[in-house]
Amino acid sequence: MNRLKDNLFKLSKISDTDCGVTRISYTPTYLKGRELVKIFMQEAGLKIKVDPVGNLIGRWEGQYPDKSVIAMGSHIDTVPNGGRFDGAVGVLGAIEVVRTLKEIDYHPIHPIEVISFINEEGSVSVDIGGVFGSRAMLGLININKDLEEELVKIDLNKEDIINSYRDPKQFKCYLEVHIEQGNVLEKNHIPIGIVTGIVGSWRFLGKIKGVASHAGTTPMNQRDDALLKSLPVVKYVNEIAKQIDKNMVGTVGALIVKPGVTNVIPGEVILKLEFRSTNKVYLEKANAMLNDKMTLQGSVLKTVSKADPVLLDNKLQNLIKQICEKKGIKYNKMSSFAGHDSRETAKKIPSALIFIPSQGGISHSPKEFTSDDDINNGVSVLLEIIKQLDSI
Amino acid sequence: MNRLKDNLFKLSKISDTDCGVTRISYTPTYLKGRELVKIFMQEAGLKIKVDPVGNLIGRWEGQYPDKSVIAMGSHIDTVPNGGRFDGAVGVLGAIEVVRTLKEIDYHPIHPIEVISFINEEGSVSVDIGGVFGSRAMLGLININKDLEEELVKIDLNKEDIINSYRDPKQFKCYLEVHIEQGNVLEKNHIPIGIVTGIVGSWRFLGKIKGVASHAGTTPMNQRDDALLKSLPVVKYVNEIAKQIDKNMVGTVGALIVKPGVTNVIPGEVILKLEFRSTNKVYLEKANAMLNDKMTLQGSVLKTVSKADPVLLDNKLQNLIKQICEKKGIKYNKMSSFAGHDSRETAKKIPSALIFIPSQGGISHSPKEFTSDDDINNGVSVLLEIIKQLDSI
Repeated sequence: MNRLKDNLFKLSKISDTDCGVTRISYTPTYLKGRELVKIFMQEAGLKIKVDPVGNLIGRWEGQYPDKSVIAMGSHIDTVPNGGRFDGAVGVLGAIEVVRTLKEIDYHPIHPIEVISFINEEGSVSVDIGGVFGSRAMLGLININKDLEEELVKIDLNKEDIINSYRDPKQFKCYLEVHIEQGNVLEKNHIPIGIVTGIVGSWRFLGKIKGVASHAGTTPMNQRDDALLKSLPVVKYVNEIAKQIDKNMVGTVGALIVKPGVTNVIPGEVILKLEFRSTNKVYLEKANAMLNDKMTLQGSVLKTVSKADPVLLDNKLQNLIKQICEKKGIKYNKMSSFAGHDSRETAKKIPSALIFIPSQGGISHSPKEFTSDDDINNGVSVLLEIIKQLDSI
Repeated sequence: MNRLKDNLFKLSKISDTDCGVTRISYTPTYLKGRELVKIFMQEAGLKIKVDPVGNLIGRWEGQYPDKSVIAMGSHIDTVPNGGRFDGAVGVLGAIEVVRTLKEIDYHPIHPIEVISFINEEGSVSVDIGGVFGSRAMLGLININKDLEEELVKIDLNKEDIINSYRDPKQFKCYLEVHIEQGNVLEKNHIPIGIVTGIVGSWRFLGKIKGVASHAGTTPMNQRDDALLKSLPVVKYVNEIAKQIDKNMVGTVGALIVKPGVTNVIPGEVILKLEFRSTNKVYLEKANAMLNDKMTLQGSVLKTVSKADPVLLDNKLQNLIKQICEKKGIKYNKMSSFAGHDSRETAKKIPSALIFIPSQGGISHSPKEFTSDDDINNGVSVLLEIIKQLDSI
């Protein structure tokens, strides 16, 4: 598999920065990266297509082109100063699966597609949201005036979204190999994670009011300090997550103090926070608990967005499990606490997400790293799934 | 005293904003305001002088021009959208004292000066610091290259500072009537505050480090969240102040979270904080307590500035006390928790600061208000002090 290692390295060189990989969708650098992936696909004998929103699709027709498509892939866009494995492993790994199958003279019954979805990270400057390519292909984008205005800025229009749609019935399944972006696998020395569900992420804005006044002339017992009032709220966000479920997370990522100068007692604090869980009921509970506490305090909790959790296909999970057992590879059933293209595909077609370890759990960083052995394990499991699914 | 009320109103109309008074030192609006005060001084028969840095001085020679000067005054610059009493009461009140003395055909033995110090608030955009005029007159400015570069921007140079200096021996005393900017007097229905000392203000920067990581993929028990670590520090700043002395204050005015986005666990928090006390020992204790706690946590406390407290002249305090008792005016001995020109003069010449009530304790705000009765009380006490000091 030196080929895959070489290709990952070649792709990582196409970056706007030397510190980590910066390959933001729709930029010239991204398009250059996509051209390289096209070459890899052509080397694997795939038929190339780029759909109107920019998803790159490489197709192997197979013996029965009318049969449902076995799709696999991920994305090649990055966050600014991201790593070289997040997404790229899923796309280049899928191409490697095709090449290996061809080398063993395999002739698939189903058409097989390798898809490189565009703008998974959502790091593009215009406000079109992440997992954009997968949402477009599966018809999950709500087109409105605001979105249309944004699309124009990257030379797209609503027709492009409409024309990128494909009937889910065309697909047998979608399979994605991805780095874990956490350290559960590494810590437990387990090479494969079978993802059971992808977390929902509910985001909120907290507004805590106090009274801004002179930090010198207002005695301690006459203050209404918004920052002091925000402390138990920040703590509670963390406590709620721990209380409700061991796999739930709650984070206050930003806290803005107004007016924010040393000699004025804070008059207002804005909190930016989120909860993540694979169980929507837990998210509802967390929302209610926090809302109760803040209302009691006279503060306000506003919903910013509610991305609900998604469960992945059970049959596919079982298949992966059997393959791991047959191959003698240890696996772990687990949730994904980051969003992925497979969260979107799972809403319409049977989908699987296979995790491989991230060293130190680090991702979205130049320090992101996954070993060759771990990548090879993931790709060999993916190859086996394809063969088995093709035979069903 | 309708005249004083009218003059205060006229001066308040010279403002860059309709919402509150905005009269920042060295701006055209400030200079227009100073011209109006010159007219008021001329109406009072004072001899006008503007020193090189911009302090306006109105002088009544008296019978013995070589005797030491009895000075009184304050400032007429404001913060942006400030009030019409902060500073202005002290300057226009002093002019009113002169007019009243002349009307009763009083002939002072000592020269009497009304001083309108420039840039007390320090709201001017260049970095020359507050209480600038009083520091210049008393030789309390440390001239260095950085300062010289700033001075150029407002058409000043180091010679201007040097030439604004006056030997403290020229002065018998400096007296300032000022609004309290707190609500102690109002709450206790006391019209006069005799200030015993002006607080020192020690400012610090706290740096609390954590590890920024993915808010989805990092389990709750594997986080090093800088924001969570900062909560006890913020709380402790407040507790320290309460513990050490009932008149001490401690404030965290700003808290900056990095990177400060919803889906990343905070990796660093910067706190901007201050302690104020009239007792330097308390400030030292607070500094040590906070430093110990933060060091224990692996955090860092950096000193930004240490303005030490100043005690005001005891004899002057006693004189004011006797005058209040004689006049049947209730008074309160108290500290000033805001800085004033008298904090600077007190370092070189006997100084007194007389507080009058601020409605609701509000200042630096369009809502700043002090009643006519309260202003008249302050001015009548000031007049009596001048007479008594002149006779000693």
